[in-house]
This record gives sequence, C-alpha cells and structure tokens, in this order.
Amino acid sequence: MYSLNTSSSNELLTIEWKNNYLLLIDQTKLPTKLSYVKCRDYVDVADAIRSLVVRGAPAIGVTAAFGLALAAINSKTSNLKIFLRELSIAYSLIRSTRPTAVNLQWALDRIMQKITNLGDISQIKKVILDEALLMAKEDIATNKSMGLNGVKLFSDGDTIMTHCNAGSLATVAYGTALGVIRAVKESGKKISVIATETRPVMQGSRLTAFELQHEKIDVSLIPDTAVGYIMAKGLVKHVVVGADRILRTGHVFNKIGTYQLAVLAKTHSIPFYVVAPSSTFDLKNMPKDIVIEERSKDEVIKIGKQIIAPPNIGVINPAFDITPPKLITKIITEKGIISPPYTKSIKKLME
Amino acid sequence: MYSLNTSSSNELLTIEWKNNYLLLIDQTKLPTKLSYVKCRDYVDVADAIRSLVVRGAPAIGVTAAFGLALAAINSKTSNLKIFLRELSIAYSLIRSTRPTAVNLQWALDRIMQKITNLGDISQIKKVILDEALLMAKEDIATNKSMGLNGVKLFSDGDTIMTHCNAGSLATVAYGTALGVIRAVKESGKKISVIATETRPVMQGSRLTAFELQHEKIDVSLIPDTAVGYIMAKGLVKHVVVGADRILRTGHVFNKIGTYQLAVLAKTHSIPFYVVAPSSTFDLKNMPKDIVIEERSKDEVIKIGKQIIAPPNIGVINPAFDITPPKLITKIITEKGIISPPYTKSIKKLME
Repeated sequence: MYSLNTSSSNELLTIEWKNNYLLLIDQTKLPTKLSYVKCRDYVDVADAIRSLVVRGAPAIGVTAAFGLALAAINSKTSNLKIFLRELSIAYSLIRSTRPTAVNLQWALDRIMQKITNLGDISQIKKVILDEALLMAKEDIATNKSMGLNGVKLFSDGDTIMTHCNAGSLATVAYGTALGVIRAVKESGKKISVIATETRPVMQGSRLTAFELQHEKIDVSLIPDTAVGYIMAKGLVKHVVVGADRILRTGHVFNKIGTYQLAVLAKTHSIPFYVVAPSSTFDLKNMPKDIVIEERSKDEVIKIGKQIIAPPNIGVINPAFDITPPKLITKIITEKGIISPPYTKSIKKLME
Repeated sequence: MYSLNTSSSNELLTIEWKNNYLLLIDQTKLPTKLSYVKCRDYVDVADAIRSLVVRGAPAIGVTAAFGLALAAINSKTSNLKIFLRELSIAYSLIRSTRPTAVNLQWALDRIMQKITNLGDISQIKKVILDEALLMAKEDIATNKSMGLNGVKLFSDGDTIMTHCNAGSLATVAYGTALGVIRAVKESGKKISVIATETRPVMQGSRLTAFELQHEKIDVSLIPDTAVGYIMAKGLVKHVVVGADRILRTGHVFNKIGTYQLAVLAKTHSIPFYVVAPSSTFDLKNMPKDIVIEERSKDEVIKIGKQIIAPPNIGVINPAFDITPPKLITKIITEKGIISPPYTKSIKKLME
C-alpha cells in the first residue's frame, strides 16, 4: 500500500491510494466536516476534480494519474487496441475537467508517455500504477525541497500573507506556498500568517485557515476586501502564493485575486513570491493561448443552500487570473529560487 | 405624513416616517426577502443602525435624526431639564452605534443645534420632527443634484464599476454613487454596471445587485477577487463609490475594499470618482483621528447559519478603509464637482 511517508502523524491525507480505489478528502465539506470520497473508477475521479472535491494544481495532477491507473486496472479486456482505446477515453474525460492548471495535462501525458511502445496489458497496468505512486511520492519530496529552498527568504517574527490554498490540501501533502511556511516554522523561526478568504469558493477560510490551525501555525483570516488596508497598515512582510501554470515569460496563472494581491504588494513595496514545482511550468504557450476557466454563477450567488444575491443576476466568475512577471519578486521551485528577468532564469532552470 | 415625493412609483422606501414610528427596510434580509422593521422608540433606532438593518452614511444620518424625534415625541415629562436629559441619553446611545460615518454625528448635532435656546417642550418636539423630515427631503434633493452634476462625466456605452451599496438603500432614496448611475441612465445614455460583492456583509450582491435589477439597469456581479482581472481585461471605464467621511485633506473613509479598488483603478488608468453630499465632509479631523470600526468575526466566519471557516479562527474585520487623495480623480457633490488638489478645492466648496 502507498504510504505518505511523512514525519507528522497528524498530517492531512489529501490523496490516498488504497490498492483498488482512491480516497480523497472531500474539500467541499471543509471546514465543518472532515469526510472522504472514494473513487472506484476514472469517472469518479473526473467528477471529484470537476466538483472541487480535490483542487490545487499538484493535487489535481496526481489525482488524474490515479484516475488513469483506475481506468487501466478496471479494464476487463485482453485486446490491447480496445484497452488503449479505453485509456484514451479516460484521458480525454479527465483532461476535460479543468482547463487552466497545467499539472493535469502534465501528469496525464507523463503516464501516457511511460507506456508508449509497451505491448502487454498487465505490464501496462503495473507501469501506470507504479508511475502514479511515484508521482505522489515525488510531489511530497518536491514540496519539501521547495520549503527548504524558501526558508532563507524569511526572518523570525515575519507576517506572511497568502491567498487561496496552496497547502497540504492542494498537494499530496506538505503544500507549495504553505510548504514554505511549514518549513520556515520547522526551521525554528516564529511566523504569523494572514489568509485571505478567497471568494468565491473560499479556499482561504475553508481550507488554509483549517489547515494552518490543524498545524498550530498562527493564522488570521481577512476578507478579500481588506488586503489593501492591511498592507497599508504595514502588517504584511511578504506575500506567498502557489501557481496553476507558469509560462516561459514568467506570467503566472493562479487563483482569481492573485493578480490584485501582486499589484497591491508592489504598491506597498512588499516582496511577492510564487511557490511552484517545475511541473507547473509550461514552456510552450504564450498568455493569449491559455483558457481562463469561467465557473458557475452558483458559486457567487449561493453559499451552501443560502441565497446571497438575486438568483437571476448576471455574474462574471473567472477561476484564475494572470500575474505579469514584473510584479513577481521571486519564484521558489524544488530546483532553486529564480529571479527576474524570468525569460532567462526560467530557461536556465528548466534546461 | 412624510412622503418621498419622487417620480418613480417603483422606488424602494429605505426610510419612511409613519407619524408615530419609523419604518425601515430590513437590509439584513435582502435580497431574499423585502421586509420592514418598525422603530417605535430611539432604542429600536439604535439597534437598527448597529445591526445594519439600515446602513449607508446618509441613511444612517436621517435615521438618527428620526431617532431623536422618537425620543422627544415619546417623552412623558413636562420638566424641561428632565426632557433635555432624556434627549441627551438618546443622543449618546444613537451616537455610539457606529464610529466611522460622519453623517451620524452631523445629523444629531444639526438637530441639537436647532433646539438650543428653546424653552417649550411641545415646541421642541415639533422642531425636532420638522427638522428630521426636512433632512429626509433634503437628502433626496441632494442626491438628485449630485446625479445631475455627475452625468457629464459619462458617455453612452460606458461600463461603470461600483463597490458596496451607495444607492437608494444607503440614503432616503435615489442614492449617491448609484444616484449618479440613475441620472446617467435617465439622461438617455446606455450604461452597464459591474458590482463587487463587497465581503463580508455583501452589500454589493445583496443590495446593489438587487437595487439595480429592481431599476432595470444592466448589472453584473463579480467576486471582490476579480476586480484586478476585470480591469486588466479593459472591461471597466469608470469607478464610482460613495463615502462615509471625507477629510479636508481629501482622504476618503469608505467601505473596506474601496482603497484597493482605487489603487487598481490608478494602475489601469481608470478614473476613480467619489460621490458624496457636503454633509459627508469633516473639516475638523485628520486621518489619524478617525476610528476605523472593527466588526464581529461572525461576519467573516458565518453566512446566515452556515459556517464557512473554523469557528475559533482569528479574524481581522475592519469595516472601512482610507483612500488617499492622490488616487481620487474627482469628488462629485451636490454643490458641484471638485478636482485635486483637494485641500484647496474642498476648502472652496465648503465656504
């Protein structure tokens, strides 16, 4: 059985492989209820990604890999052509769930590349599952490396603002932006975190606040409207966020609200750091090529069953925005920290 | 009986005097239910202001005036000293409800000044009620003047972003920022509005969206996190907001989130207008003298009965922020439009 192999017994298990099914924390039910969703086939996996049971670029990538593993394991055919056709259908369905995060595509392609030229179905099944398990392990190791790399940027007593949830719950474990925060704490420096609510899905209040409290890291929650005021009062020393896709130009696609956080950080001379593994880099596309996912108006007009706006009102609900490289102080990766100009430093990093 | 005396029969009656009680739209129940709260005495009035049944600087001012009228009318004493003591208690209680909006203090002081040197209780009762009724009428006239003054800044086809609710529901009728939007529409220019949700109390989704839809003005709702992205996409031509207090330096105190909207407008070269009557100007104080109201953490961790964050999490929940004059393109008042430098133009306006 796949084991998280992390030091803390208290760790939240975002994604857990249980031999013949995938167990996911149901993040739509947090923070009021810590419950789990069992994915027994790739359709369950696609549903879980689409409905935000699991979210966060690295977590989506690994979940997608296990989705392909389930498609492979569950196949009853002994005909290679039919088997590969089934895998291809699973690939397309999972791929279609969310368009903006690059890790989804990256994980699926990594699996498919691994089985190119293999001809034995049972061998392919084993290779796919092994690769998914490896990716889960790598994700944790990568996050710990990013954490260690980031520690030197922070000092004892710092207050760090973060947006959305780039934590344990956005990865297999440990987190990207919150992984750095964990590592700073583990290094013995005392820090405080200010978490934005992150409307409309409220990953900040529901997930980051929950996760940091669970880890006994000092955290205060603020409405998204209070970012500028809190910065103007001098209460923020650094901003750290995750990323769903980073282009070779240094443009960062991340949760809606990241861009304005970066503008406000620049205005108040606060360093703005992006924390992301090299799997989040997309060296092919330019900003205009990337689809920004527009999500349901229900996310804005309802909270649970509670109606909070006129039900038939028009809504603009983009899930992501684009932060240009000039607003980003540093990008922290598992391979090291890079600085502007990003066209150069990203090219060198990814060589 | 006090009548709104406005052209539209469809108008929302935010504040209505009913001879011996005050009828307020219960804004905490919108948009799902249009219901009313009866205030039979000044304690009811103080409760209504504190609990946000009525909110918006001009509406709070007029409501406070009727609160003093209720205190006067309900008094049973024939002893002038006791009567004035009762009024003074009512003044203090109502004054204590909300610290940041200047109109509350302004309205109470205007009433108290009107009765200085009067010695007859029944005469004082009449003077107070007449003054409150006059203030309600003046509020509507002032809003219509601001609207007419503002029209020339806008063109056919413009999209205007607004924050919080500076509408009919924030005044006796017609509104300040939304009054200008109404006037632009009435002038025959076609316009669209983008309303921010305005967490945590969501005056944008609950009140502005409701009010503009009620008036058949095209409106789209966005999460507060989407402001920067929507501006960067070139979808916003102007920003208009109200104000709770404007200092002689041109510093504007308004709903939390206004400051970051102004920073983002500046970054994207979008004109940023503040719409407020001259009663919102405070010529005495400096920015450091003003108390920013910090409201209950329940506003951030709950929506209705729904828990949306860990209940025992730390919360920073300031109700207002401060926008410095350098970010404000123009201030629209009933006496005309003023431009920077505001120390000069405000002095001249208020002479």
